Amino acid sequence: MASVVMQLLGCDVAALNTVHFSNHTGYRQFKGTRATAEEISALYEGLTQSHLTDFDVMLSGYAPSAAAVEAVGAIGMDLQRKAEKKPGSFFWVLDPVMGDQGRLYVNNDVVPAYKEMIHHADLILPNQFEAEVLSGVKITSLSTLAEAITAIHATYKVPHVIITSVQISNLSDSSSASSTTSFANTLTVIGSTTRSDGSPRLFRVDVPALDCYFSGTGDMFAALTVARLREAVFAADPALRTNKSWVSPDDVPATALPLAQSTVKVLASMHCILEKTMEARNTELQATVVSNGKVLGEEERKKQEHLRESKAAEVRVVRHVQFLREPTVEFPAQEWSKDDLPAQFR
Amino acid sequence: MASVVMQLLGCDVAALNTVHFSNHTGYRQFKGTRATAEEISALYEGLTQSHLTDFDVMLSGYAPSAAAVEAVGAIGMDLQRKAEKKPGSFFWVLDPVMGDQGRLYVNNDVVPAYKEMIHHADLILPNQFEAEVLSGVKITSLSTLAEAITAIHATYKVPHVIITSVQISNLSDSSSASSTTSFANTLTVIGSTTRSDGSPRLFRVDVPALDCYFSGTGDMFAALTVARLREAVFAADPALRTNKSWVSPDDVPATALPLAQSTVKVLASMHCILEKTMEARNTELQATVVSNGKVLGEEERKKQEHLRESKAAEVRVVRHVQFLREPTVEFPAQEWSKDDLPAQFR
Repeated sequence: MASVVMQLLGCDVAALNTVHFSNHTGYRQFKGTRATAEEISALYEGLTQSHLTDFDVMLSGYAPSAAAVEAVGAIGMDLQRKAEKKPGSFFWVLDPVMGDQGRLYVNNDVVPAYKEMIHHADLILPNQFEAEVLSGVKITSLSTLAEAITAIHATYKVPHVIITSVQISNLSDSSSASSTTSFANTLTVIGSTTRSDGSPRLFRVDVPALDCYFSGTGDMFAALTVARLREAVFAADPALRTNKSWVSPDDVPATALPLAQSTVKVLASMHCILEKTMEARNTELQATVVSNGKVLGEEERKKQEHLRESKAAEVRVVRHVQFLREPTVEFPAQEWSKDDLPAQFR
Repeated sequence: MASVVMQLLGCDVAALNTVHFSNHTGYRQFKGTRATAEEISALYEGLTQSHLTDFDVMLSGYAPSAAAVEAVGAIGMDLQRKAEKKPGSFFWVLDPVMGDQGRLYVNNDVVPAYKEMIHHADLILPNQFEAEVLSGVKITSLSTLAEAITAIHATYKVPHVIITSVQISNLSDSSSASSTTSFANTLTVIGSTTRSDGSPRLFRVDVPALDCYFSGTGDMFAALTVARLREAVFAADPALRTNKSWVSPDDVPATALPLAQSTVKVLASMHCILEKTMEARNTELQATVVSNGKVLGEEERKKQEHLRESKAAEVRVVRHVQFLREPTVEFPAQEWSKDDLPAQFR
């Protein structure tokens, strides 16, 4: 998912696969192998010895063990060292893949591995649960959400953060509950680029939620962000691209940040593609049936139905490249109301 | 290369990687691992158990051992069995990667593995050397070239053959030597779709050669052919796509074959992309230098120069997607003169 999305947006990609699986794990069954930390390091050594490491951006995602996470981290740090003399020439987007919905799906030792590494990243993309794990702040409200982001900026010195999916309706104190939008059917993405005093510059983008589980959307978000953030930075004041980590001057307001502009485009593309996927999925589910004449037990019937639904919901990317490049809708980046900020920033 | 080219042309690709290398072997050094036959088979088993094998086309290329070639072959045959009741619903493009320029670069036991398997393929894409190995005919002239293709049709019952690169000027009896084109700077691609009597329908496409070695062009040719051949077959008489192996009726002349139409488009795209690559390469080579101040020994200097030239010649695909989709030049498919055919077909 990540490779093809970046390629369709014009990026030359060197993909270092950390797993070699037959299918995504949403099917609940798969075959294949995981790359070891040694294999990951060896591939990077291969690139290094042939001078093939002049990357502008690195996107790191799922790695199958703490040692593999550390091997990927070592690559990011080495690329950063190589770019030291040219600020802004290398940018690391780190997706700290650890779990979701209140549950880790990696070994416990992966958590400290990420905590050690994140202060080297330029942008991290945790989901709500991962943001809680990293910040130590339980997110139960908009103000605790803002606290969590502030803590991540402060603890890990990471200048850009996007929390890729928050269900605002589940938060207790949502001032948005009074708005005209029905937030039960809304996904909210929260982002922030830090100011020089460490305070967050928070923006939010609300997108209508689709009633379907799609696999790979986290990687799609990350890959689109790689292309769109770079584009927004290059479209901004030329000085920005030679700033370490592309951090905008303090007077740039949250919604004018390249990170906010990028997120708006990313979510527009995703919404278009997922809507097309949903249409195709519904057509496919209507056209096919599970049973091929055999009478299946209840458990087997459920399993077959799950496989059929998983396949039908595979995200349709390559036929809808125009929506990656030029999405037809847009959801604006919005300022946060002061009431939703922690006391020290009101 | 193969995956991204097919994806950029709108194909959904399930890539089964047979090697995991840091870079292509043209650099003369690399790190990484090879997939074992067991790993290849396990991945296919994973697809099968989740009903993810409804492929329209399979493209098979390099595999790192005879056992791996056999494992890939078993996949092709299983997909063919599954499609048996729907002729034309599955098509296997097989690139029998064995060697080049008179030299095998795989183990000797890979040759019989391919010879066993090829009669299951719908289209094979040998280079001149591989065509000699498969046919047992030494290609020294246009008529021996036609003999080799005829032998391949007859021996392996493979209905479509493209010999992806022939240097006609090296052949002794070339009747083209008298033409106005300078064939020293021409690459010729030869293709044929068999008739029901087993005779070949031979066409040729001449393309100006570029004075540079590019790696991955074989995979690029194969991937473009997957997309373009299917397109040409679907644009032809609707009956064709439900013919086994998409073999056109006997009255379709060589240059009107979908295989010929496809090859014309494939070579047009390749020529445009390689020309752009050549320009970018020349610019890059002028802008960079090998030595970073250190005095290098002669051998080390040559090695560094080779690495630099290899990187500069990496084919520029993603930024030139318009030439994949809509190439701006075209080189026509030509009939063969009767004089160049073996005696029995004159």
